[in-house]
Amino acid sequence: MTRRGSKNAAPSTARPKSRSLGLSLDPDDARSLYQQLFDEIVSRISTSAFPPGFRLPPTRQLSEELDVHRNTVVRAYRDLEEAGFVESTVGRGTFVKALPRASAASPRVTATPASTSEATPPSTPLPWASLLAERATSEPIRRIARRTKRPLFGPAIDLSRLQPGPDLLPTKLLTRCMEHVLDRSGGRALGYAPLEGAASLREQIAADLARQGVPASADDVIVTSGSQQALDVIVRALVDPGDTVLVQAPTYGGALQIFAAAGARVEGLPNDADGPLVPTAARGRPKLVYLMPNHANPTGGCISEQRRHELVAWARGRGVPIVEDDYAEDLELDALPTPPAMRALDGEVLYTSSFSKRLVPALRIGFVLAPEPLRPTLAALQHTSSLGTSLLLQLTLAELLERGYGRAHAARMREIYRSRRDALCDSLEKHLDGRVIVPRPARGVTAWLPLPGAIDLESLGETARREGVLVATGDLFAGARTDPEPDAHGVRLAYCFEPEDRLIEGARRFVKALDQLWPQSASKRGKQRNEGEGALV
Amino acid sequence: MTRRGSKNAAPSTARPKSRSLGLSLDPDDARSLYQQLFDEIVSRISTSAFPPGFRLPPTRQLSEELDVHRNTVVRAYRDLEEAGFVESTVGRGTFVKALPRASAASPRVTATPASTSEATPPSTPLPWASLLAERATSEPIRRIARRTKRPLFGPAIDLSRLQPGPDLLPTKLLTRCMEHVLDRSGGRALGYAPLEGAASLREQIAADLARQGVPASADDVIVTSGSQQALDVIVRALVDPGDTVLVQAPTYGGALQIFAAAGARVEGLPNDADGPLVPTAARGRPKLVYLMPNHANPTGGCISEQRRHELVAWARGRGVPIVEDDYAEDLELDALPTPPAMRALDGEVLYTSSFSKRLVPALRIGFVLAPEPLRPTLAALQHTSSLGTSLLLQLTLAELLERGYGRAHAARMREIYRSRRDALCDSLEKHLDGRVIVPRPARGVTAWLPLPGAIDLESLGETARREGVLVATGDLFAGARTDPEPDAHGVRLAYCFEPEDRLIEGARRFVKALDQLWPQSASKRGKQRNEGEGALV
Repeated sequence: MTRRGSKNAAPSTARPKSRSLGLSLDPDDARSLYQQLFDEIVSRISTSAFPPGFRLPPTRQLSEELDVHRNTVVRAYRDLEEAGFVESTVGRGTFVKALPRASAASPRVTATPASTSEATPPSTPLPWASLLAERATSEPIRRIARRTKRPLFGPAIDLSRLQPGPDLLPTKLLTRCMEHVLDRSGGRALGYAPLEGAASLREQIAADLARQGVPASADDVIVTSGSQQALDVIVRALVDPGDTVLVQAPTYGGALQIFAAAGARVEGLPNDADGPLVPTAARGRPKLVYLMPNHANPTGGCISEQRRHELVAWARGRGVPIVEDDYAEDLELDALPTPPAMRALDGEVLYTSSFSKRLVPALRIGFVLAPEPLRPTLAALQHTSSLGTSLLLQLTLAELLERGYGRAHAARMREIYRSRRDALCDSLEKHLDGRVIVPRPARGVTAWLPLPGAIDLESLGETARREGVLVATGDLFAGARTDPEPDAHGVRLAYCFEPEDRLIEGARRFVKALDQLWPQSASKRGKQRNEGEGALV
Repeated sequence: MTRRGSKNAAPSTARPKSRSLGLSLDPDDARSLYQQLFDEIVSRISTSAFPPGFRLPPTRQLSEELDVHRNTVVRAYRDLEEAGFVESTVGRGTFVKALPRASAASPRVTATPASTSEATPPSTPLPWASLLAERATSEPIRRIARRTKRPLFGPAIDLSRLQPGPDLLPTKLLTRCMEHVLDRSGGRALGYAPLEGAASLREQIAADLARQGVPASADDVIVTSGSQQALDVIVRALVDPGDTVLVQAPTYGGALQIFAAAGARVEGLPNDADGPLVPTAARGRPKLVYLMPNHANPTGGCISEQRRHELVAWARGRGVPIVEDDYAEDLELDALPTPPAMRALDGEVLYTSSFSKRLVPALRIGFVLAPEPLRPTLAALQHTSSLGTSLLLQLTLAELLERGYGRAHAARMREIYRSRRDALCDSLEKHLDGRVIVPRPARGVTAWLPLPGAIDLESLGETARREGVLVATGDLFAGARTDPEPDAHGVRLAYCFEPEDRLIEGARRFVKALDQLWPQSASKRGKQRNEGEGALV
């Protein structure tokens, strides 16, 4: 009675009603027919329209009903089985599998709350603030946590974001290379990466560097999760808590965070027109010198060739490693000569760079060139930090570079960044009207605007935000102890993320904010603002 | 004269010879026609067959010559321009661009080697060994660097590798989800990820955990580069150099490396049948307790529900955070009840897991569930370490979980791992012939074989390697100071990487190696080996 009366069981004698499955395929859909069939069936399994134990129609029958080649159905069924949604038994048919028993009957759900509440006092949290490690509470780390949460694509114009805008990312080229890698290597592209990185990528990186005059062999390269992890690993390898690190002042906030997390004492080097001054004996015995010789973040300065030689000679003589962070590698916007890389002057220099600014941040791939004796330690610490960077993304980037897509894309980026730089700087000059000289950077993706010392930088950032533009003020790059005080009073404006029209408008909004804080004209400013509102809006 | 005589300029009056471009498209190729055309042209640009300034034939003409729709050529040309290989000028045509001037005329290439060699002594390397930080030279870190370099797919049978074999990786499902993400979000999927991870992924992870009885909301989740980075970040947040960390002894080598890199003092907890003993006062005031309650690595032990309650109550009472590493989450192979997660007993427990063992290592995605007061610091330190995990991979995983592919795949993995476990353990039992009891793990992807203390583990690893099988011996998991000495003398055999036939053969080879070192039967062994050779080979 029960068996015969069951509504779920298909009557075995009558003609199967699989037409009522309601499946339909669309030949105009971008997905292939077998993919559509796969998706349709998975969707019905998810909603339990096809419950566990449900028998799918035989392939021949379904192919006739859907008017498709039988192979289409066979392939969809095979993929469904491979993916774990159905199981086939020869002679019996293809059945929907019972999905994870954990969904309903996980033994863990039967936790015993009674004894739990007796044994532990859930109402009293642990004293987390007092449990934090000393270095985790340092100012540069706290700064990240304090950072205003802002939506990635909000209405504000973002001149603070140091990444290519979404319109500049080579989605198609990346997709094509990734599909090729997955098609060629299958599961072999989806495991863990070798300790130092994928061999094919290390070769491409070395070739790419050679093209730019940075001597490197594939063996020199250790692949990392962006140049951020490269620096983190270098610091973990070389810096003990309390050790001194020398930096250009001001310098990249992310580097200051790494030094803080390592418990390092950070000393800033003052600059002259040639770059940071060669350290004097007063700097003690530093463990590391961190430099951005080609396009300093945030000021955009480029260290002269002469000063590079002096710094390298000093470091060699004192036995102090230099880290050369060339994050804006391959982003020379004007046909100006760039001095040789410090790594080209001395093979003991640790050279780091990244594919985030010139290619794709979501690759999360950077690298370090390191002298042979240091490599095993760097690779081991990189492994300790994260077990390496995604093998799939490494192989995809290698393919992209090997095909020449990387070079072509970088050339295109240089053109676009040049236009964007000019749009931003032209608009700034127009609105500033001579009050501040706007230096036009020859490299990279940011402009640096020095400001009168009387302007409070935190207030400026907040005022700009209210005017609808986000900027990176100089205080975000402070933290090194310097003597004398460096010229870090200014604002960094990035021209990589926003398109030209928004850069032009962003500059206008920024100057409007600046007007509100401009010194030595308090009374005049009041008038100007009223006039300005009319003129600028 | 020069102009007219230029060989590179196509004669403007004669019929263009673009047939001689030698392009040909194959309708049977898996790539679409426009992709083939794109690839063909890029390939000719790379080899300079189409030099800079070379004019491509007009789209109408090329489409006729190739007998394809004109839109095919238009699309290929547009993509070539977008990728930076050509530029089009209305009315003039489409020309190959001069690729990066850096390739030949990089100003950096003109480094001044003369002054370099004067200024610096390149022949004397820096004293790197003496420059290393103290923690970077600790034993667990050195162990990685010492590790024998072995090919990923060598002839040896690999029972040491804790990752799914390439045949088990859901390449098609992953490709489909990734294509969907790139198609839907384009460049927005290729930027940096939000500080705590992509919102859609955090939601899917929380839902996935809820299904397994681990209470979590999306807000609790911080996405990391595997559970390795999750632990690294936790330790950086909570452990100062010299602080004590308590672990199960023996424990995961990667965790010991993280503790070593942090300069922590590691104390091992001895075990009884219920799991690690509740720490006594002799353990001092630890800053962290690190546990793998459900499937300890390497021993496979599962902490009893009673002991979980006791450990949680002790930790709360002493104000010590617990880290619950559930790396083998969702890998219950038998229908045995699993005790509740420690995180389910106490919301202050830090819970970490990974998608590397049950899904795809190359995603490099793990996570930590953390109490609210700790989250900003963990997110900030994760940002400091690597600027986050690939947004593209995060969105792909979110899509994969949302479609139910993750659950279906995990169910299939459980079946396969169960069969592989049985194949390995059956073969071990057969060849060991009762000398060692082979515990059959109810969860995870590794079996633990306790061995007589007289067997030297390093020799065993080396002998096994010579016999063509790689294993993880217990010494790799030692490092915690323990009193009394824990029962860590054994070998871990992973059944996830190799297929069944190789697991069966691998067990045979391993026992053959073991026979050569088996104690208390030196003379008898000699004979056995001779007999054995015949029987086993």
